[in-house]
Amino acid sequence: MRWLRAYRAAWLPGDLAAGLIVTVLVIPQSLAYAVLAGLPPQMGLYASILPLVAYALFGTSMTLAVGPVAILSLMTATALAPLAAPGTPEYLALAVLLAALSGAMLAAFAALRLGFIAQFLSQPVVAGFLSGAAILIIASQLRPLLGIPAGGGPFELDPVTAAIGVTTLGFLWAARAFVPGLAGRLAPMVAIVAATALTAGLALDVRVVGDVPAGLPALAVPVPTWQAVQTLWLPALLISLVGFVESISVARSLGGKRGERIAPDRELLGLGAANLASAASGGFPVTGSFARSVVNFAAGAHTPLSGVVSALVMAGVLAGLTGALYFLPHAVLAATIIVAVSSLIEWHVLRETWRYDRGDAAALLATALGVLALGVEEGVIVGVALSLGLILWRASRPRIAVLGRIPGTEHFRNVERHEAETVPGLLALRVDESLFFGNAAAVQAGVEQALAARPGTRRLLLILSAVNHIDATALAMLTELERDLAGRGVTLYLAEVKGPLMDRLAPTELGQRLRERIFLSAHQACLALGAAG
Amino acid sequence: MRWLRAYRAAWLPGDLAAGLIVTVLVIPQSLAYAVLAGLPPQMGLYASILPLVAYALFGTSMTLAVGPVAILSLMTATALAPLAAPGTPEYLALAVLLAALSGAMLAAFAALRLGFIAQFLSQPVVAGFLSGAAILIIASQLRPLLGIPAGGGPFELDPVTAAIGVTTLGFLWAARAFVPGLAGRLAPMVAIVAATALTAGLALDVRVVGDVPAGLPALAVPVPTWQAVQTLWLPALLISLVGFVESISVARSLGGKRGERIAPDRELLGLGAANLASAASGGFPVTGSFARSVVNFAAGAHTPLSGVVSALVMAGVLAGLTGALYFLPHAVLAATIIVAVSSLIEWHVLRETWRYDRGDAAALLATALGVLALGVEEGVIVGVALSLGLILWRASRPRIAVLGRIPGTEHFRNVERHEAETVPGLLALRVDESLFFGNAAAVQAGVEQALAARPGTRRLLLILSAVNHIDATALAMLTELERDLAGRGVTLYLAEVKGPLMDRLAPTELGQRLRERIFLSAHQACLALGAAG
Repeated sequence: MRWLRAYRAAWLPGDLAAGLIVTVLVIPQSLAYAVLAGLPPQMGLYASILPLVAYALFGTSMTLAVGPVAILSLMTATALAPLAAPGTPEYLALAVLLAALSGAMLAAFAALRLGFIAQFLSQPVVAGFLSGAAILIIASQLRPLLGIPAGGGPFELDPVTAAIGVTTLGFLWAARAFVPGLAGRLAPMVAIVAATALTAGLALDVRVVGDVPAGLPALAVPVPTWQAVQTLWLPALLISLVGFVESISVARSLGGKRGERIAPDRELLGLGAANLASAASGGFPVTGSFARSVVNFAAGAHTPLSGVVSALVMAGVLAGLTGALYFLPHAVLAATIIVAVSSLIEWHVLRETWRYDRGDAAALLATALGVLALGVEEGVIVGVALSLGLILWRASRPRIAVLGRIPGTEHFRNVERHEAETVPGLLALRVDESLFFGNAAAVQAGVEQALAARPGTRRLLLILSAVNHIDATALAMLTELERDLAGRGVTLYLAEVKGPLMDRLAPTELGQRLRERIFLSAHQACLALGAAG
Repeated sequence: MRWLRAYRAAWLPGDLAAGLIVTVLVIPQSLAYAVLAGLPPQMGLYASILPLVAYALFGTSMTLAVGPVAILSLMTATALAPLAAPGTPEYLALAVLLAALSGAMLAAFAALRLGFIAQFLSQPVVAGFLSGAAILIIASQLRPLLGIPAGGGPFELDPVTAAIGVTTLGFLWAARAFVPGLAGRLAPMVAIVAATALTAGLALDVRVVGDVPAGLPALAVPVPTWQAVQTLWLPALLISLVGFVESISVARSLGGKRGERIAPDRELLGLGAANLASAASGGFPVTGSFARSVVNFAAGAHTPLSGVVSALVMAGVLAGLTGALYFLPHAVLAATIIVAVSSLIEWHVLRETWRYDRGDAAALLATALGVLALGVEEGVIVGVALSLGLILWRASRPRIAVLGRIPGTEHFRNVERHEAETVPGLLALRVDESLFFGNAAAVQAGVEQALAARPGTRRLLLILSAVNHIDATALAMLTELERDLAGRGVTLYLAEVKGPLMDRLAPTELGQRLRERIFLSAHQACLALGAAG
């Protein structure tokens, strides 16, 4: 709310214009995403009013546009499909409950200061998830786009519906490709108006939106039953997590352009409030929309007042203009969805990630395949598990380099990569990983292997510049290694032990035994040991 | 089998003596552990014959004594309790199947070379698991020790049984405390002989072992049904994992004393063969026993021939002497178990771990409490999850140190811990962790905080000596950070980038932008930048 107290008159034109332009974009999107979620179109409008106001009160981003988004609509449909038939009153009630639960979770995470959880979805996993989900969404929209009835084959398409759908798709694609800037963003609204007018004027026999009840439903706080909590907690959690990650990455990237600070814990609160507001006004799960936030930013929004403006206009539409939506064909909504989500499939991210890091690229692909083969929720879980597993896998296979001194300096580097000098009888090894239970045995084996390759070694210097921590298991390994080496006539020395690690090591058995054999730097160790050898 | 081909006559006396002494220890233990598993005592004897021979053929440790152990007996009882009533034919058949499944899994892991999985149980987790399981086992033995009927309260104890049980317990404890070496290890056998003679001679009315059928059952390969696999796979997996970890740590610590190499993949094969042999001869899950392996080693065993000797003697006992076990009181077996497992509760490990590393100590305690509060299988899972979580948690909160040059050297250290020289306008930071999605935001925040604390900074030098890897998410963060800093008039430099990391970075956008700003060492960076400043 700080933005309201510091509000300057100069910001008003930008906020007003941005609010109006976002509304033009949000109307087709919110109708389409409600249908994608298996809900009546007006629920998309409900989810685009109070959440904007709630986020304006509690969030930290100045330009985030909160409301229905494609991914959460897909996740809502996936979560509710096994519980009720789309469109039934039970299904609608469950969608509202899902928003309420997700809002309560996000608010609870904010209270517990769990904003850091967004970190546990890596960029490749998010990219893979969005790509997989986008493909699922596009596949789900082919039937309404072409007018194929449920269970029908590709040749049972309705020619009129297909003509409207494919024409709209081509128009939206061309607008995106050839009309840069904000003008191009108006294309979905143009398509809606034109297609609705055409359908009404020619009395075309295609599936249309039909009656949309006017006005918001009575505000109500949905209280979930214990049974509902038991069935919905996992989908609500994943929706909260995905929504938060999507939203905060949009907020960060836009905020970064203006030097704004995004506070993750406050963002959790803002999104929690938005979802609770959505539930209270008969909507479904919402989060920050990438497309609409970018438009809001580009159209000159300075503060969340633009969101409040958009909410007011939407409320006006809902109060008086829902009749105008009667002849809007479903095929147009399908085309809108397809064009909107196709930008989520980022081939260049896969290409760049593949070039930089095969492991990350594998996590991206596995997440996308997980979403396609196993399902949306399972895909997120697979992705998180894989990327955490990748970190542990890397840490469990440490690099161990033989070091030598770069001539004329006190700097030590890998002898295989640099022309470096070594001291006879002294083997200097650098272990490139913190030592822990997962790599203790591998480090021990690696050290033994390096020693076996240099039979004359009588002094072993471990350079710990890359070792940030040694856990109890690895400490036991080192203690055993030292004893074992001593028995074979090889003396162990340490160098470049970091301060906090030194504090821990000093009082241990190993620390006591090595007391006189720990050097500040590899250079000092080699000076002392080279002279003594 | 290499040991057999290289066998020397000089080893024979040691192997013979060790085989006989281990047999004296294995008879009471195998009877007791079978009863602990809810099985008739003779199954303990079955599990102590062929598994020894199978391990001698396929394992790599020269002194490991394979057979029933307390922890696996407890895990067997826990796994089978929900499926059948202890002592029933179904229960016995399931125990045999559990050994078969576990043997097949271990053999499959050997074929897949998964020996490294033992690494994923850290020492604190294993210590916590063993302590928790030992407490559960001791609690389960109080009723048979004191002769309290099932469901009875502490005052319903049977005075005669309790007198036998408590006397035996006191005797075994005293023997352990005051009779050092191998002689003390004979105490359980002495207790069994004395208590059996006393019970038979005085015709005491206490619960005794009763009829033990003579001879091995017909060898049979148990083929699990699909339904049995579905219910038993998780317990079999956890039994395999725990058995493997327990066994390999014993094998390693004994092997280390004689310079033997233990090959994890071959150990998997040896234990897999031992469990399949146990199942084929009507036994239950087995692994390397800590107590008996130590006795075997101390008694002078040189090769697995001592195990073969022990197996032959056991077969003899089973063929002709089972009648002698009729009057053996259950209370004596309970006392044997309590004394054997009490050594698994290692308070000193908790104390030392607590002193060295609070996180590891917390994992130890949580695993022990998990075993006690949730169950044996759940405890293992909690422990593994916690110790992996701890690694990720540490990695997600990296230390960032401001460095300066130690006067008279080219070595850079934390200015808060050392008297170190800095260059005005140049801030040298060392990040003490590989950069990945879990800490990218934290590193960015830490760098910003360090910059904010030194407002005059115009050059930022990141020293990557402790950074072993940068993942795609962290690369994006660094790219953004560099751009962002440049916009604020701060130039980013890197130093001590490791070779493999440099290879990855070079072709990226960040690598291209920084090309002229990467130095071999912190010292060279400061020379160049100090002169330019």
